[in-house]
Order: sequence, then structure tokens, then C-alpha cells
Amino acid sequence: MSRLMAMARIGATAAGGVDRAALSAEDAAAQALMAQWGAELGLSASRDAAGNFFLRWQAGEGAPVLSGSHLDSQPTGGRYDGVYGVIAALEAVQAIQQAGVMPRRPVEIVAWMNEEGSRFAPGMMGAAVYGGARALADILPVRDKHGMSVQDALAATSAALREVPQRTLGGVPYAYVEAHIEQGPELEREHCPIGIVSGIQGKHTFRVTVRGEASHAGTSTRAERRDALLAATAMVQALAQALHDDADIVKFTVGRFDVTPSAPSVVASQVVFSIDLRHPDSEELRRLSGLVAPTCLAQSGACAVEVERLSAADSLTFPAALRDRLAAAARRLELPARGLISAAGHDARYLHPICPSAMLFVPSRGGITHNEAEFTEPADLYAGARVLADVLAELATLEGRP
Amino acid sequence: MSRLMAMARIGATAAGGVDRAALSAEDAAAQALMAQWGAELGLSASRDAAGNFFLRWQAGEGAPVLSGSHLDSQPTGGRYDGVYGVIAALEAVQAIQQAGVMPRRPVEIVAWMNEEGSRFAPGMMGAAVYGGARALADILPVRDKHGMSVQDALAATSAALREVPQRTLGGVPYAYVEAHIEQGPELEREHCPIGIVSGIQGKHTFRVTVRGEASHAGTSTRAERRDALLAATAMVQALAQALHDDADIVKFTVGRFDVTPSAPSVVASQVVFSIDLRHPDSEELRRLSGLVAPTCLAQSGACAVEVERLSAADSLTFPAALRDRLAAAARRLELPARGLISAAGHDARYLHPICPSAMLFVPSRGGITHNEAEFTEPADLYAGARVLADVLAELATLEGRP
Repeated sequence: MSRLMAMARIGATAAGGVDRAALSAEDAAAQALMAQWGAELGLSASRDAAGNFFLRWQAGEGAPVLSGSHLDSQPTGGRYDGVYGVIAALEAVQAIQQAGVMPRRPVEIVAWMNEEGSRFAPGMMGAAVYGGARALADILPVRDKHGMSVQDALAATSAALREVPQRTLGGVPYAYVEAHIEQGPELEREHCPIGIVSGIQGKHTFRVTVRGEASHAGTSTRAERRDALLAATAMVQALAQALHDDADIVKFTVGRFDVTPSAPSVVASQVVFSIDLRHPDSEELRRLSGLVAPTCLAQSGACAVEVERLSAADSLTFPAALRDRLAAAARRLELPARGLISAAGHDARYLHPICPSAMLFVPSRGGITHNEAEFTEPADLYAGARVLADVLAELATLEGRP
Repeated sequence: MSRLMAMARIGATAAGGVDRAALSAEDAAAQALMAQWGAELGLSASRDAAGNFFLRWQAGEGAPVLSGSHLDSQPTGGRYDGVYGVIAALEAVQAIQQAGVMPRRPVEIVAWMNEEGSRFAPGMMGAAVYGGARALADILPVRDKHGMSVQDALAATSAALREVPQRTLGGVPYAYVEAHIEQGPELEREHCPIGIVSGIQGKHTFRVTVRGEASHAGTSTRAERRDALLAATAMVQALAQALHDDADIVKFTVGRFDVTPSAPSVVASQVVFSIDLRHPDSEELRRLSGLVAPTCLAQSGACAVEVERLSAADSLTFPAALRDRLAAAARRLELPARGLISAAGHDARYLHPICPSAMLFVPSRGGITHNEAEFTEPADLYAGARVLADVLAELATLEGRP
């Protein structure tokens, strides 16, 4: 808890949350603090070319057991999303050391670069490059809303962390386990401290650019106007209708909506808005995804519209063997556990294709997340870290496959 | 033309337009250039507490003949909106001096503070305070989107223009005449260089704040969400429908739409959008204005909505006597002229209640304005300045009422 609260002070917001954008000064400060804590436990810090941060316990030879999550947050994010998984991994390593366990392989803690995707879209950038799903050259030119590129922001972070050595990009871990808050209400509702994640629901993201023409709010007639804002709001409403399901399983979100020139008496010349679309059934997700462009086009009126798909991740299922190890660890510790699907995306998505991967969840109060009011009971945070320590100790000492 | 093009370089945009926000460094630079040109003609510069800028030709005694417009622009504005009326007044004074006319009263040139309202809402702030329609104390706390107040921006402009003396706020001019580009297509369509403005169409402005709750795009269900963006886009669409008229006379514009926290995978907790609503018939405008709040409320769903009316200006008619003088001046110069209503708001709105006021228009190519492509033929700019000089000379030498 003291480490979590120290992290919560880095980028703290007035409302009790955290604003720690990827590759910001606050992100670098959080990594520097991790490096300091790691040094106290004999762990060596390093960073790769994609901005991922590692702490390595050279406890043995061969491919490492890897565990962690991310340190970046949403602009009005909470104190637990991401950072919990990094701190829990550090606590787990400390507990394994103190218990006198002798691993046969290295144990590494990781903080992936830009999981949130709110500064540089889309998210999970660092893990995607590490896992080989995206090329480094592909993420470097991505810019934030102030025009700063990932490349320049990486350089600024490297300058702030110049005492942390660079390491080679990529690698194949022995196994990867990520702890995270649930970001949904199910575990809390069932008073269950441990969630063993069966898989991650699919997610497709889009950027829609609507181009009209600026004109005077007092003089241009409706017939003459090419109002990008009126067209874009019609598209958002039509999308909400086209993607509607009575069962309330589809997740459709427009979170950004940037207007140019953004003046009260000027008809908007351009709107750029984001679409985040998720569904646990990959086939249904692909069908819904196919409706986006025609629905936007049908509402474009006198404007031009461009629909770009930024990412298209299908649903995935984590290997049963590793999930069974998490369940067994919870049983040994006499902690109630249940399986559930992750509705949110996580860095583990990009580790899954390269090594046996798993995730465990702890409850989120009211399911509230990506919000300054995010909260998990300390007892639940502790329970999750205990299960993580147990399974990391097992994976670190295991002979053969995980 | 050389003075207009010199002004166009202050805040020039890559696309050939102008970005000269009210009380910005560019706005101050434009005033400094006016002060320099005025000094060359023996005019004395001064500024009042509302940030209005004056050049006074002390050619006689009593209440001055006042003429001008504004130097601020929209963020992607053109080279003529506002600045034309200020430069035309300066050219007129120079022509009157060169013609050897001996005025019996002072002639003043004015650049009103923040006509556009795009940085600080609503617009026509300086003229409204000068004319007594708004209190100075009422505008000082207004903030731009970066949180800077009018008070602080005024202090910064005063510091940049510390050699320009302060003058008492307010006054009652003998008469006020404002030249401006039409910002509509009528004069161009009829190949008529001079428009004599009968009056100004009414305009009501609103700020709508929609409050929801931030939540995770991947986990929160539709039933749980309080999505401020989805509610706000529904409001904009419902307003477009409720305010629709087949005759296409109503002007309804949403030009700003600011989303918080503005991240692709976070459900929006808040949207603040602007409404600019105009109609030449004051009674109809008031009726339409009354539809805004209930229409927004009906679409609020699980969100809270607050509708604030920022301004409510009825339609007005300029005095016939002064319009007749403009028409006579055009006849003397053998320039075709016609009457027309101003669909756009202008600073003259706030002079009208305190002194005989009038406006003349020159054509705008294609009616395009509040746009970097804004253009008026040099011959038309010249024609307008000639009529202005003629009528200002008449008003400056006239005995009795204007």
C-alpha cells in the first residue's frame, strides 16, 4: 500500500486520481521510483527501444518468468489501473526472496509503454512491439494532440532516465502473468477476491475524419453549409443505433471528438472522432466492425468522411494449464477464486502469442475505472499479490513447460 | 491594400488566413501598428479599460464622429473581417485631411475589443461595455479554454502597449459608422459594390453543459453508462430538427464541442457545447430560443444537463436619416448601392442604443467568411472606403443632428 500510494502522488489530480500520460515526465518519474525500489532488492533496471521498462532478478539462467503491467494512466485515471500489476510483481519478487526460494530461472518485472492509448493511439503499444505484433518503425511517428511524436517523447523519457541502461528489444519469456484490477463489477458483486481470467474480449478501434467547410454562423444558409459537426453528431447517433443489441453485450464508445476551428460562431470545418468497439465473440465483432464505415458514409451529407481502422484485435483464450496453476495457488492460500472474461484489453494480449500467458484480477469497487474514483480494498490487493507471488515462485522453480 | 496586407502578416496562417485572437500578442501588435500609422497622420492613440483602442483626430470640439470595427479574428479567419473597417476609417481620415476639409468636431477611429467571441465568449465584448450593455466587472472574469481570464489578458495587452495612454471608459459619440465585408453572397451576386445596412438580425447564444460519468469503454455496459458524448450528440441532432425551417432562414450553429476527459477508451464524463441561433424576426427568434432548453433536457437520458443563455440580442434597425446619407454619398460617387440586412452581428449593435449608427458593406467573394479563403476585390474595398470617407467628412462638418 505504501508503494501504491507513493506512485499515486506522481501525477496526482485534485480529485484524488492520477494523470500520468505515457512517456510524460510523470511516467519517467514513476519508472525512476521503480528503479530505486528494484535496486534495494538487487534487481537491475533496463529499458528497450519501445520504452518498455524492466527490473531483472538474475536468480537463474534461461528465459525469464515475466510479470507486470503498465504505469501510464488515463487523463483522469485512478490509482490502481496498471500500476497495481507492476507493484504486485515487485512485492511478489520481494516475498519470494524473503521466503528463501531458489529460482532456476530469472524473474523479470515489466512496465509496458503506453497501455492506455489516450495520449498516443492506439494503446498497448510497448507490449505490441515487444510481442512482434507491431513494428517499432510503425509506432515512432504516431503523434499526440499537441503534435509530439512517440519518437520525440521516447527521447525525452530516455533523457530523463539516462542512468537506466538500454536492452535489446523483444525476447521470449518462459511465461507471463499479469495482475490487474477487474475494471468491472463481477468480483465485487460476488464477494470474490480473485478472478482467473479466461481470455480477453476482442476490440476494434477506428478514427473517423469528417471534412466540411468553415463558414459564418450568421450568414451561411443551411443549404450552403458543409457542417462537419452536424454530420459527425449524426454519425455518432446512427452508429449507436446500428450497433445496438438488446442483450447489452456490445461495447460502443466515442471518447474523443475534436472540432476545428472550435469557435461558437464558425461552422465546423472538421471533426475527428474515435470509435472503440468490443464484443467477446470475434465473429460478431467483425460483423459489427463492418457496419462502421457504411453507417458513417450514410450520414456524411455535404461533407467528406474517411474511416480508418486503427486496430482489430480478436477475442483470445489463455492456456488452461496456466489458469489451473493460478486456481491451485488460490486454493492453497484458501482464497475464493472464479473464472471470468476480461472485457478490457490488457498488455497480456500481446504476450499470449509468444509465451504461455495468464492474468489474475482483483475486484474494483462498483466496477468504476478509468475514473478518479477507482478503488480496490487493500485486503483484495493483498490477496491478489499473494496469489501472484505463489504462482511466480512455482513458475520460477518449475522443471519443464509452464 | 498595403496596410491591409501588412495587417494580414500579423497572425498569418499557412493557408493564407489570419489567426489573431482577441487580446493575444498578435492583437497587441496590430494595435501597435495602428498607433504608428495614426502618429504619421497626427492622430493620438489611447486605450480604455475594456481594451478598446482609439485614434483621435482632434479636428474640432464636442462629441466625435466615430468609425471603425475590430482587429481580432477567428482562429482560422480571413484577411478582411473586422480589420477592413478599421483600415477604411484610417484611410478615410487621411483622405479628409488631404482634401483640406476642416471638421468642426473630432474624428475618432476605433478597434473594439473581442468582436469575434472565439477566445472569450460571447463576442462584441468591448463595444458592449463601451455602450453600457454589459458591465466591465462582468467581462473581466470570463476565461478562455486555457483558463486565462479577460482581466489577465487585458493586463498582458496593456503591458505590451505601455506607451499607449489610458482613456476614460465610455462616451457618447456624435455618430458611428462602421464599414465591413458583407459575410454573405448578396452584393457579389448582384455585382453591387456598396451595401447600406438596414439593421442587424437577432442572435441568441447558449452554453450547454452535459454531465455524465467517466467509465471504461471495455467493461461498462450500456445500461450502466452515463455517456455525456452520446447524450450531447443526441441533443445537437434533436436541436437541428426542432429548429428546422423549410424556408432556410433560421441560422443554427454548434461550433464548439469540448469533451472531458477526451480519451478513446473512456466514456465521456462531460461535454460542453455552444449554440449560436439567429433569425431576422425578433419574435420568431425568441420562440426558437425557448425550444433550446426543453429539447436538450428531453435527450439527457442518464446525464444531467445545464443550459445557460449567454446573450440574447434582438434584431435592430439603423436610423433612416443616416442610411440616407450613405445612399447619397454612393450616388455622388456614382457607385451602385442597395439596402440589405446584416445576418452577422457587429460592434455597431452596441453603438446603436447610444448614438445614431450605421453600417456599410462591401462584397465577399462567394459569401465565404470566418474562413482563410475570405476575399474581397480591391476595387470593392476602395469603393467602400470612398463612401465611408465621403460620409465621415459630411458628419464631421455638419451643423445640428446627424
